[in-house]
Parts: sequence; C-alpha cells; structure tokens
Amino acid sequence: MTEEIAVIPGDGIGTEVTPAAVEVLEAVGEFEFVQAEAGDAVKDETGEALPEATYELAASADATLFGAAGETAADVIIPLREAVGSFVNVRPARAYPGVDALRPETDIVFLRENTEGVYAGHESRLSDDLSTLTRVVTSSASERLAEFACEFVEGDEYDEFTVAHKANVMRETDGRFRETVLGVADERGVEADEVLMDAFATHVCLDPEKFDVVVCPNLAGDVLSDLAAGLVGGLGLLPSANIGTENALFEPVHGTAPDIAGEGVANPTAAILSAAMLLDHLGYTEESARVDEAVTSVLEDGPRTADLGGEASTEDVTSAVIDRL
Amino acid sequence: MTEEIAVIPGDGIGTEVTPAAVEVLEAVGEFEFVQAEAGDAVKDETGEALPEATYELAASADATLFGAAGETAADVIIPLREAVGSFVNVRPARAYPGVDALRPETDIVFLRENTEGVYAGHESRLSDDLSTLTRVVTSSASERLAEFACEFVEGDEYDEFTVAHKANVMRETDGRFRETVLGVADERGVEADEVLMDAFATHVCLDPEKFDVVVCPNLAGDVLSDLAAGLVGGLGLLPSANIGTENALFEPVHGTAPDIAGEGVANPTAAILSAAMLLDHLGYTEESARVDEAVTSVLEDGPRTADLGGEASTEDVTSAVIDRL
Ligand SMILES: CC(C)[C@H](C(=O)O)[C@@H](O)C(=O)O
Ligand SMILES: CC(C)[C@H](C(=O)O)[C@@H](O)C(=O)O
Repeated sequence: MTEEIAVIPGDGIGTEVTPAAVEVLEAVGEFEFVQAEAGDAVKDETGEALPEATYELAASADATLFGAAGETAADVIIPLREAVGSFVNVRPARAYPGVDALRPETDIVFLRENTEGVYAGHESRLSDDLSTLTRVVTSSASERLAEFACEFVEGDEYDEFTVAHKANVMRETDGRFRETVLGVADERGVEADEVLMDAFATHVCLDPEKFDVVVCPNLAGDVLSDLAAGLVGGLGLLPSANIGTENALFEPVHGTAPDIAGEGVANPTAAILSAAMLLDHLGYTEESARVDEAVTSVLEDGPRTADLGGEASTEDVTSAVIDRL
Repeated sequence: MTEEIAVIPGDGIGTEVTPAAVEVLEAVGEFEFVQAEAGDAVKDETGEALPEATYELAASADATLFGAAGETAADVIIPLREAVGSFVNVRPARAYPGVDALRPETDIVFLRENTEGVYAGHESRLSDDLSTLTRVVTSSASERLAEFACEFVEGDEYDEFTVAHKANVMRETDGRFRETVLGVADERGVEADEVLMDAFATHVCLDPEKFDVVVCPNLAGDVLSDLAAGLVGGLGLLPSANIGTENALFEPVHGTAPDIAGEGVANPTAAILSAAMLLDHLGYTEESARVDEAVTSVLEDGPRTADLGGEASTEDVTSAVIDRL
C-alpha cells in the first residue's frame, strides 16, 4: 500500500524547502504526493488562507508535509493541526553541527499539548473596556498527552520527563494539567518531575542539560520551545511533528523568510528533518535514521547555505543529502 | 516628613538580605521602618501566609521592602502587589560585574502588567473533565501601563519600547492590549514596535541588544523576564519594583534559597538594589544613584559571597557597600 502524503508548501521559502523534502522522501521510499495550497498567496487569490480542499486533504492523508505561511500563519496552522487530529506537537531542540549555538549542550524534546489552553480561543469583548479569553484544560487531553509522553520516553534514550506549568497561579487549570500528567506517569512507572514555567526559562539558560523531555500546555510549549531554539542557534534547522491518532503533520519550525524567498538559497535542512520525522511516524524507522544521518553529515562537511556561512543553493544541499543517503 | 517603610522579610534568606537592605537605607536617609510578617513561617504559626495587619501596613506605608516567601509565595506576593495598588512590575535584567553571564550585553527593563491577564484568576471546575480560566484584559489597565512606559522611556536613556504579546492567537485580549499600548505610544510621540512573545524568546537569546524596554502582559512578563535573568546569569542579583499610584513594593527577584538559609552567607545585592529602586521611587534620586554605584563597585572588587565564588558573609558585603557610599 502506497501512503498518501499531502504536501502544502505555503508561502515564501516554504515553496522552496518543501519540494526539497519531497525529493528526499522520493529517494528513500514510494509515496503518493498530493499538492495543496494554503497561506497568504492563496488568500490573495481566493479570499481564503486555508481552502476547504486543503483541510480535507490533510484530514484524510496518511501524513502531511507543511512548509510555512506568512501573515496568515495562525489561520493556517491552527486549523491544520486540528484537521490531522493532532494532540501533541513534538519539538526537538538540539544544536546541529555547524551552527553557532549559545548552549550547544542543549538537547531537549518539547511535547506540547496541541488542542487547548488559550488556543481553544473562546474570547469575548464584554465591554468597551474589557475583553476575556477562556482558557480550557481537560483531563482527557492532558491524559492523552501524558500517555504519549510515557511511550515517548519508554521507547527512547530518556526514561523520565519534566512537566512545565504555572500551577502556582493557574491552580485549577494548570493544577489539573499537572496532576493528570504526573498521575499518568506514576501509574505507568515513568519518572516525572516538575518545574514552574518561569523557573524553567531561567534554568534552561543556566543549565540546559538538566532537561531532556519537557511536557507542557500549549502556550507554554510555544514559548519555551522557541526559547530553546534560541539556545541552539535559532529556528533555522529545527523540525517539528504534530501527531494525531489517525494522521499527522510535519513542519519546519522556521517561517517564510521573506528576505531571501524566491532566490533558491533557503536552507532545506529543517524541512528535510521534518520529513525524517514523518518517515519515523509512518514506521520507516531505518529510512528516517538514514535521512537524519545524511543531513548531519552534510551539516558537518557538506555544502552550506548562507545562514550557515556558505554559498550553496537549496538544491546543492538537497542533492548532497540525497547523495549521502 | 519621615516616610514610613514597611519591611516584610518573609522566609529563608529573605530574613537575612532584607535587614541588610534596611541597613543601607539607614545609611543614606531617615525613614521609619515598620516590621511585618508574611510567608511560610507565619502560616505555620497562625494559619495565614499573609496576615491582615501585613496587608494593611503595605497598603498604607509609603513604600514596602519585601524579601522572599517559600511555598506560600503566590499567596503572599499577589495580594501584596494588590495591597500597594501596583499596576506595573519593573524588572531590569542586566549583567552586573563579576557575574558569569551567558549574554553579558543584555540590558533590558521589563514593564510587566501587574493586575490582570491570567493572574486575575477566575477559574472554574466545570466538570470532572474540564476546567477553565478567564483571562482578563482591559483597555484601562493597558493604558495605565502604556503611560507609565512612555514616561519611563522619555525620562531615560531609551526613547522607545517594544510590546511583546501573542495577539496572533489571543486576538481579542492581547489584540486589545497591543492596540491600546501602541495607541498610547503613538499619541505621546514615543516610538514603539512589537514582537510576538514566542519570537521574543528566540531573538533575545540570539541578539539581546535588539531590546531595551519591553512592555508585556502579566504572565508574558513573568516568563520573559525570567528568561532574560537566565541570560544575565540568574536571578541572584536582580531587583524589582511593583509600582502603584499611591505606594509601591520592592523585592529581589530571587527566592528563599533554602539550601543556604540561616547561614548568614546569602548575597544581599538584589535586596540592596531593590532598596535603591525604592529610594529612586521616593524621590531620593541622588541617594539611589549612590547606592547603585557602591553596589557596582563592591561587585567589581569588593568582598563576594559564595554564589559569586567568594567566601564573604552577608554582613561583609553589606558593610562594604555602606563603606563605599
Ligand atoms: C503561528 C502560530 C499560531 C504558531 C503557534 O503559536 O502555535 C507558531 O508560533 C508555532 O509555534 O507554530
Ligand atoms: C510567586 C509567583 C506568583 C510570582 C509570579 O508569578 O508573579 C513570581 O514568579 C514572580 O515573578 O514574582
């Protein structure tokens, strides 16, 4: 059976790095790729940043590869995460070779709750002066995330995780999150400790090696993973995975990079590493590892794009990765 | 007229560094100090972490010097901020001499909204599965903060500020915050730009010099200022001010440090710098500058406590600061 992979390049360098990732996937397996549109460009044309057809495709495909969207990012990515039924956003932050990292010893995977928190987004304009937002936390979503976290650390080199939260202030909502996640860990015999999200922000700078796998609510995961990205040298090389029960969506953490878009010089590494996460998710463990190793090898001594101080094109780097598979 | 200063040492090293700060204040001016209790210790004794008398004292004093509280920190500091009618938490994050900082070039003042956001704290347990928190943003609080920010940058070496928010997701609430703050800046002819709080977390690591004064909602200010603390070497030396229209409360950013509490070796610098902010707030500009300079001079070549690699006691450092006033 050939798996169907939805390909949504989006805007800016998304349209350059996503095809590069597809080339790499074609080099290691047989997939049926189906292209779809989303983002600023399609909004300009049709009035809709996320056409119904794209949503449906992501919802039905075995996996989706997404590039980046510009101004419309939130209108695209939040519904797309929902389309694939994603309950966790997996964000590894580690320093890759050849990157000037503030804290090269950082090696953290964030498991970010992907459906609720402030992203559930019930907002009201109650008066001329007052607006509110209803932040939502359920035991069921926290439990599903915690179960994923337990499986993640059981199957990996790590054997424990840290829950980051702000339950000293958000006692009922983050309190529920914290208790549920720690409870599941306890039941499954997985070690879990906890840290306040503000304290995490200090400690991860001072001593990143303290943390391996960090489980957090939606917005905390957004901010703290971007912080870790700063410690490993930026968003440029980081992949991510939005995992659901049925399907999943993979995306580089970087944006559309309007300053270099259209020049064919964008670094395809984050998109290719996202494709490696896709392979792993679909069960192509060996192929995933091969892509990872080829990318690492190219980062070490292969052609480099301008962001890493080189002069290579997107295509140069992509070909080098494929050559080393 | 002698100003009344409420002194609330709290727990742990709060009881050691707060008297040190009082000694310094006594060396530069005449104040009436009134002691009060708050924190874990008084809760153990009386059942209340924040006795009514302490709340009333903070509400009526000209200024309050607070140390630190342990487990009960949230039960103490959130109501105390309310007691002094504080609408802004001023948190400077800069690398002081003698501290091993990850990004010594960091020099940012956070102006954190101090009354609402998730701290307004309307939480409900709606079912066995579901809890909610109502996040509150008003134009009036945002406006007051923005006016403070404008005065702050007008009277200072900076002449612009950055608003950090997450209005791409919290469109109504952070949208209101963002628009109000940028609107006030525009009216007053102050330059203001903006950044998404997740992007800030990355960029402040990569290039801290991009930011001078950062205005943010309550929780964003909590997390992002702690992040900046990580870049300048930790919370150890950082002071802070909770400013209200009538009175104000000053506190070191560090906690109770249970590991070294009771040994007389805690670093009093953050508490003394908080006292310098207090002096400035009460109009003792020259005295405030003298304290600041004496502290900086001691950090450069005076006695050091263990956290800075020395062997001096709290009292040694305090005496050295007083000697150099
Ligand atoms: C674009 C935005 C809605 C999104 C988020 O907040 O989740 C982005 O910051 C991310 O982390 O993928
Ligand atoms: C103790 C806690 C409630 C407090 C806060 O979140 O404001 C602390 O983290 C701080 O920043 O002063």
